[in-house]
Amino acid sequence: MLVGKIIGTVIATRKDEKLVGSKFLIVQPLALDGAPNDRPLVAVDTVGAGVGERVLYVTGSVSPLAVRRNDTPVDAAVVGIIDSIDLGG
Amino acid sequence: MLVGKIIGTVIATRKDEKLVGSKFLIVQPLALDGAPNDRPLVAVDTVGAGVGERVLYVTGSVSPLAVRRNDTPVDAAVVGIIDSIDLGG
Amino acid sequence: MLVGKIIGTVIATRKDEKLVGSKFLIVQPLALDGAPNDRPLVAVDTVGAGVGERVLYVTGSVSPLAVRRNDTPVDAAVVGIIDSIDLGG
Amino acid sequence: MLVGKIIGTVIATRKDEKLVGSKFLIVQPLALDGAPNDRPLVAVDTVGAGVGERVLYVTGSVSPLAVRRNDTPVDAAVVGIIDSIDLGG
Amino acid sequence: MLVGKIIGTVIATRKDEKLVGSKFLIVQPLALDGAPNDRPLVAVDTVGAGVGERVLYVTGSVSPLAVRRNDTPVDAAVVGIIDSIDLGG
Repeated sequence: MLVGKIIGTVIATRKDEKLVGSKFLIVQPLALDGAPNDRPLVAVDTVGAGVGERVLYVTGSVSPLAVRRNDTPVDAAVVGIIDSIDLGG
Repeated sequence: MLVGKIIGTVIATRKDEKLVGSKFLIVQPLALDGAPNDRPLVAVDTVGAGVGERVLYVTGSVSPLAVRRNDTPVDAAVVGIIDSIDLGG
Repeated sequence: MLVGKIIGTVIATRKDEKLVGSKFLIVQPLALDGAPNDRPLVAVDTVGAGVGERVLYVTGSVSPLAVRRNDTPVDAAVVGIIDSIDLGG
Repeated sequence: MLVGKIIGTVIATRKDEKLVGSKFLIVQPLALDGAPNDRPLVAVDTVGAGVGERVLYVTGSVSPLAVRRNDTPVDAAVVGIIDSIDLGG
Repeated sequence: MLVGKIIGTVIATRKDEKLVGSKFLIVQPLALDGAPNDRPLVAVDTVGAGVGERVLYVTGSVSPLAVRRNDTPVDAAVVGIIDSIDLGG
């Protein structure tokens, strides 16, 4: 999983029918110090995340496991909202 | 998912038989500001996208989930046509 | 999918038994203008491609879908021979 | 698999219900000489690894195979604690 | 698949139980001219490869297809020992 911040949303009316009802979040990957890190991507929301929140997201073919229908063609999904990151022991 | 723009098509007559009837679109990945971003790739169309349209596409092994036969060897698929991208809350 | 050119072959006598009979092609990824692009990789042939031909290939876990036995451990496969690439509308 | 070192943990109370009970470890990828290598990621623990330990981890869609429920949306998992790395014959 | 050279081994006593008995090889990816190329990774051996041998390896979620139990959490596997690489027609 990677750490990211929700910075926006994408609207797509014409889409794969299995994606109807999905919320597309724009996720900015973050380094551990909170700095932007790599390019933004679009992930489906599965935990009610909103703009400004810091989240854990997955990418790749495990992403459908996070949505209701496991045959949904998504390759990124927000799976948790981060409370805290603890570095060191 | 990533954001891209359709910039062309690829014709391949000799191909895996499960790909017969597929439309191969050349997708230029885009940054959020619309600038080209990374190298173009070839994705199958599943939503009737045409040259010049801005789309959402998936890559990797979830791509077959977007086409009719889930055993089709494709690793990129256009899954939505973007209406708008909203940054910020 | 990505565009590549077949530039050679690999011979491996000792291999996973499910790979017996597979032809291993060295694929040079190409940019749309035909220039080399990224590092060569080894893909199994599924369409009778030969050295010098321009092909479409897939990578990752959809690759076994292109070969006869879907439990074959391959992570790249040539799935089409390109006739033409059309840029623009 | 890749070699990494556990450098911290992530707490996420609101998350996919299949992730409840998972421990999220921050893994710093390491080069063979022990130097940091690439960006840290978050992996689920499956072997009782703790901060400071050097581990083997997997990424991608094999990661759910390392946890109890194979439909858990995780894309990185610690699968072993390294005793030694032996270079050369 | 990619071309690599076995340059060492990793010992991990505490590990996922499905990995017990696996041999972990350190693979240095190679360019076609034999020069090191990208970072070393750890792959399971499935063909009896040893240090110094030039091999074909797969990465990602097809890797479990190369080992006996297809639910083993491995994301890289050596699948062949290279006899020769032939460039050109």
